[in-house]
Amino acid sequence: MLGGTGPQGRGLALRLAISGVDVVIGSRDEARATTTAAAIGHGVRGLDNAGCARSCDVVIVAVPWSGHRELLHSLREELAGRIVVDCVNPVGFDERGPYPLRVEEGSAAEQAQALLPDSTVTAAFHHVSAVHLADPQGGPVDCDVLVLGDDRAATDVVRALADRIDGLRGIYAGRLRNAGQVEALTANLIAINRRYKTNAGIRVTEV
Amino acid sequence: MLGGTGPQGRGLALRLAISGVDVVIGSRDEARATTTAAAIGHGVRGLDNAGCARSCDVVIVAVPWSGHRELLHSLREELAGRIVVDCVNPVGFDERGPYPLRVEEGSAAEQAQALLPDSTVTAAFHHVSAVHLADPQGGPVDCDVLVLGDDRAATDVVRALADRIDGLRGIYAGRLRNAGQVEALTANLIAINRRYKTNAGIRVTEV
Repeated sequence: MLGGTGPQGRGLALRLAISGVDVVIGSRDEARATTTAAAIGHGVRGLDNAGCARSCDVVIVAVPWSGHRELLHSLREELAGRIVVDCVNPVGFDERGPYPLRVEEGSAAEQAQALLPDSTVTAAFHHVSAVHLADPQGGPVDCDVLVLGDDRAATDVVRALADRIDGLRGIYAGRLRNAGQVEALTANLIAINRRYKTNAGIRVTEV
Repeated sequence: MLGGTGPQGRGLALRLAISGVDVVIGSRDEARATTTAAAIGHGVRGLDNAGCARSCDVVIVAVPWSGHRELLHSLREELAGRIVVDCVNPVGFDERGPYPLRVEEGSAAEQAQALLPDSTVTAAFHHVSAVHLADPQGGPVDCDVLVLGDDRAATDVVRALADRIDGLRGIYAGRLRNAGQVEALTANLIAINRRYKTNAGIRVTEV
């Protein structure tokens, strides 16, 4: 879990660890990763980003968009052969609210695949409320996880990972070239949250 | 209803007419509109596109993306003062399946607003299955309608319109600049439909 000290990564780490997954969170600062891991508990460990990448078969990327390119560029070797799960949302804010940022490669996930030619990149977990993830006492998280990727085996692994978290359901939702709108839809969910004072998620019906 | 002779427009016309809305469908060819209207029944009338635009306060645009720009450009005067509801999905297909088309203005809805400066443009009804709309005996349509727009009164009108159809629920989902990803998400729903052999819709949770 790269970016495991942010709210989304921290919540996913907590929920995956509760479900029995062996979770390592990474941070630029190993001491910060260790401290956060101890605060999360449930056996979560902390390492620096390179150590985290090397030690995991499936690496979730939950860093801020602003640091996405630089981080992945620096970890190309460590992430080789891994399934990378990008859950980064390139969303900006101004006085009129949230809006999607234009990404040259089409999406954060496609940028990741371009930077990591030796990894299998998928995209998932964009819409899961960090607030709900952080609160296991709050009951199941009412959200489907849209899983995108060009490699069937990898998307199956990521779907199964989503299924482990109480309430979540992993659904295959297309090839990586269809990740941009899934990432950008987070701007709509933020707009919905603001209008309806909630922490909205999405469900796919008839699946 | 511009494009009322296509599957999406036809289904929406049928369901809105059943709910008691006075529906006029438009087509380039008035005879075709009249014939389709008679086949739909429930009091639906048919006119040519210009006559349809002039006769409606709320005009749903359900034409193919390929004809979107030309049609709206030709109806600028007729659509002045109207609420325009764009439900066009700029989606392409190739041997690898569906993918979003890049739209210079950001989205079909923003293109509509650029072409129709004297109309109030909203975006909605992108994800409602035409198959389900066509089959009122099939029970409620299990789908939320994401309604986008910069004018609160207009999005309230469109949300209320969605609420009239059995099963649908209109939800405000952001300003018009957030319409692109909602339109493009249709590519993901098509990918889901292909994988899971279904007619998927979406629901927003916790609203």
